[in-house]
Amino acid sequence: MTFRQTHLLGIEPLHPEEISTLLDLAQDYAEAARAGRRHWDALADFTQINMFFEASTRTQASFELAGKRLGADVMSMAMGASSLKKGETLIDTALTLNAMRPDLLVVRHPNSGAVDLLAQKVTCAVLNAGDGRHEHPTQALLDALTIRRAKGRLHRLTVAICGDIAHSRVARSNILLLGKMENRVRLVGPPTLMPAGVAEFGVEVCEDMAEGLRDADVVMMLRLQKERMDGGFIPSEREYFHRYGLDAAKLSHAKEDAIVMHPGPMNRGVEIDGTLADDINRSVIQEQVEMGVAVRMAAMDLLARNLRQVRGPREVMV
Amino acid sequence: MTFRQTHLLGIEPLHPEEISTLLDLAQDYAEAARAGRRHWDALADFTQINMFFEASTRTQASFELAGKRLGADVMSMAMGASSLKKGETLIDTALTLNAMRPDLLVVRHPNSGAVDLLAQKVTCAVLNAGDGRHEHPTQALLDALTIRRAKGRLHRLTVAICGDIAHSRVARSNILLLGKMENRVRLVGPPTLMPAGVAEFGVEVCEDMAEGLRDADVVMMLRLQKERMDGGFIPSEREYFHRYGLDAAKLSHAKEDAIVMHPGPMNRGVEIDGTLADDINRSVIQEQVEMGVAVRMAAMDLLARNLRQVRGPREVMV
Amino acid sequence: MTFRQTHLLGIEPLHPEEISTLLDLAQDYAEAARAGRRHWDALADFTQINMFFEASTRTQASFELAGKRLGADVMSMAMGASSLKKGETLIDTALTLNAMRPDLLVVRHPNSGAVDLLAQKVTCAVLNAGDGRHEHPTQALLDALTIRRAKGRLHRLTVAICGDIAHSRVARSNILLLGKMENRVRLVGPPTLMPAGVAEFGVEVCEDMAEGLRDADVVMMLRLQKERMDGGFIPSEREYFHRYGLDAAKLSHAKEDAIVMHPGPMNRGVEIDGTLADDINRSVIQEQVEMGVAVRMAAMDLLARNLRQVRGPREVMV
Repeated sequence: MTFRQTHLLGIEPLHPEEISTLLDLAQDYAEAARAGRRHWDALADFTQINMFFEASTRTQASFELAGKRLGADVMSMAMGASSLKKGETLIDTALTLNAMRPDLLVVRHPNSGAVDLLAQKVTCAVLNAGDGRHEHPTQALLDALTIRRAKGRLHRLTVAICGDIAHSRVARSNILLLGKMENRVRLVGPPTLMPAGVAEFGVEVCEDMAEGLRDADVVMMLRLQKERMDGGFIPSEREYFHRYGLDAAKLSHAKEDAIVMHPGPMNRGVEIDGTLADDINRSVIQEQVEMGVAVRMAAMDLLARNLRQVRGPREVMV
Repeated sequence: MTFRQTHLLGIEPLHPEEISTLLDLAQDYAEAARAGRRHWDALADFTQINMFFEASTRTQASFELAGKRLGADVMSMAMGASSLKKGETLIDTALTLNAMRPDLLVVRHPNSGAVDLLAQKVTCAVLNAGDGRHEHPTQALLDALTIRRAKGRLHRLTVAICGDIAHSRVARSNILLLGKMENRVRLVGPPTLMPAGVAEFGVEVCEDMAEGLRDADVVMMLRLQKERMDGGFIPSEREYFHRYGLDAAKLSHAKEDAIVMHPGPMNRGVEIDGTLADDINRSVIQEQVEMGVAVRMAAMDLLARNLRQVRGPREVMV
Repeated sequence: MTFRQTHLLGIEPLHPEEISTLLDLAQDYAEAARAGRRHWDALADFTQINMFFEASTRTQASFELAGKRLGADVMSMAMGASSLKKGETLIDTALTLNAMRPDLLVVRHPNSGAVDLLAQKVTCAVLNAGDGRHEHPTQALLDALTIRRAKGRLHRLTVAICGDIAHSRVARSNILLLGKMENRVRLVGPPTLMPAGVAEFGVEVCEDMAEGLRDADVVMMLRLQKERMDGGFIPSEREYFHRYGLDAAKLSHAKEDAIVMHPGPMNRGVEIDGTLADDINRSVIQEQVEMGVAVRMAAMDLLARNLRQVRGPREVMV
């Protein structure tokens, strides 16, 4: 197997073969969990620390469960209630935790680039759990695994990513991953929610949902990131749903067997019609969550293997 | 052993034999813990998620410890600081966590019936850790175990439940359990704190403590649920203690060897005299807490056994 | 090995030989961790509960990791969000948790003496993680181990403790420990931040940094405890740094190989110059954090050994 990374900071540095390696391992973990298995020893001699500078039920829970299922000692820091209040800097906090000799550090931070910076300062493997508008690599990987399971392949698919692209690290990581695997990506949404310089990603851009969803294999809705729209344009929810919210009528433009995705948490009736979200013939939203645990298990397992090779056999003492 | 439930949603659906089975197993766990044992493997291949939508030190800690002692991977979600803030519904949150494939989901929620609703949506075993004014089954079970240990039996006892019955799920679950086991239950308290339609439970109702405690084997005080008295009658604490607070004088009407119980946290000098609460010859309040861990271990162990039977032998992979 | 304590409430009750025993064991744990080991079974059959009534990222994380690495079931209670809000007293909360039969209780509390009081009420081993202005024994022990590793010994050293002595339990525990091990301690800082009756500790007191640091082997900076200066004198940060903040110029008065310490979290540019804090030739601040985990592992291991002797062999049941 080929996976040469020492950190998982984004999709950008990953080779397509590394992505496939990770998804193959995640697929094995997912199937074992479906068969009822809940515990492994892959990280039995590892310490994992989760530093979440932004609250997130699902991502933090997913990483925490992934680590515990692999047997790691897992510690989750609620960084809001922490020393940052006492005026400590991000780097000092990271160096402090690093001095406790964790093996894996999972970090979410509101500032783009903060996780990369931090990875340069510490001596353990760092996993980016989302940094500002930059990257959210495990989300793109779990989306990729979900697509591969539903469609039987992860190339030559037409994927429509719809909604608030501008504020979305999920969109950015997905665009990078889907591009590397040779898929056709269309971004659909109002110009005000489209990032500048999007052309350089090699994607198509549409303002109209009917046009954007035409013949799509995958319709990936995004969350309206109201909390990141500081001072900018905030659409009315009713108007937004009318033009960009996914419902059965808009979905009819996509392929007959197109799947519907959403990274959660959903705003029902804003980005997506509630009935459609719950339709198990179209929606794979719950499976995305399930694959999230598997993908994070695979990512930490692979990073741990590389860490072990660098360190060599461990002494057993005391 | 007989325990056929797939969830523990309340006392109401339990057969008396199931209650006895659970208490017997809890008794074994409690004695082993007293002998110094702290760890078992009964849930070694299980994932337990605690979702507390209301804060609770003792109940959450008790469930968390119970799961850890049985070897489960335990994850406790502080749901206040969660995705609910981002507008996600209870059901979406539950479905998200369910997709991570927990085996046991422990839920506390301020709305009566919320836990039952949730149990219909998920694929794991659900334990009700208190829902609104409805049920709090593990509290009634730990009270029952404490009574059985002190009195040598759990039938034909006279139990006085005193105070704020109207707002108390603890009272409701205890009334159901004590009734199923053929005990005589008296509710004692001011009419304003007595629920409507209490007669249908087959209990006696008293307004006067002296009369209500007469010949009682067990005096169970309740917490004044000020946080649930929205807009209603709030008694002055001094006046309340004078008429309904338990002290040595009022207790003298009960049997000489009557035990004193309180589910905690106590308002000393309001529901109960502090000296009496600390009197180890009468008060079993600390033992209630101790039995709480044992009862939760037993409940999760029994539900897990049933889960295992449904699932069949597990494949071992990866 | 000699360690006779049943609790670790402070440095005051410790015999010098007990301190050496603890530091020797911590040294072994620290070296094993450096060699890559992360997990032991010393506390595999123990329950550890952390009760932090004051927030603290680093101390709570350090105790939590220490317990998990030794195989304990660890439960961390965020006491702010707890039953204290419902009016429960400290002692009732402690008795409640004690009834759940933990083996080790780690407590931080804003009131001096609160942890000692609590230790008298419970049946498990209590570790003081900081109580008011009284003691913070594991901090002094980790400082001692860091000094011993850097200087090759822990006696006949000149140690300058600088800054806000009056509000510092860290200073108090360090003064006690360094005195027991026969070192020369100088307290350096403004008279307004010097505690009353400091002479009885057998230390020198200086107002001037140049004089106080002369020929020091160790320069230990303290954090300005603004949060504890209720109503008292609060110096301007700029003025404070000018007179008492450690920089290269002031450090030049100490021995050429003097080490620089800080318990964290640092106020860079207030107590200490940022560049100096990061200078790995002088600053051992990261190593202090690293030794913190090792010292807490050693302390809990030793207390657990004593607990095991009192209890005798455990029955294995259920």
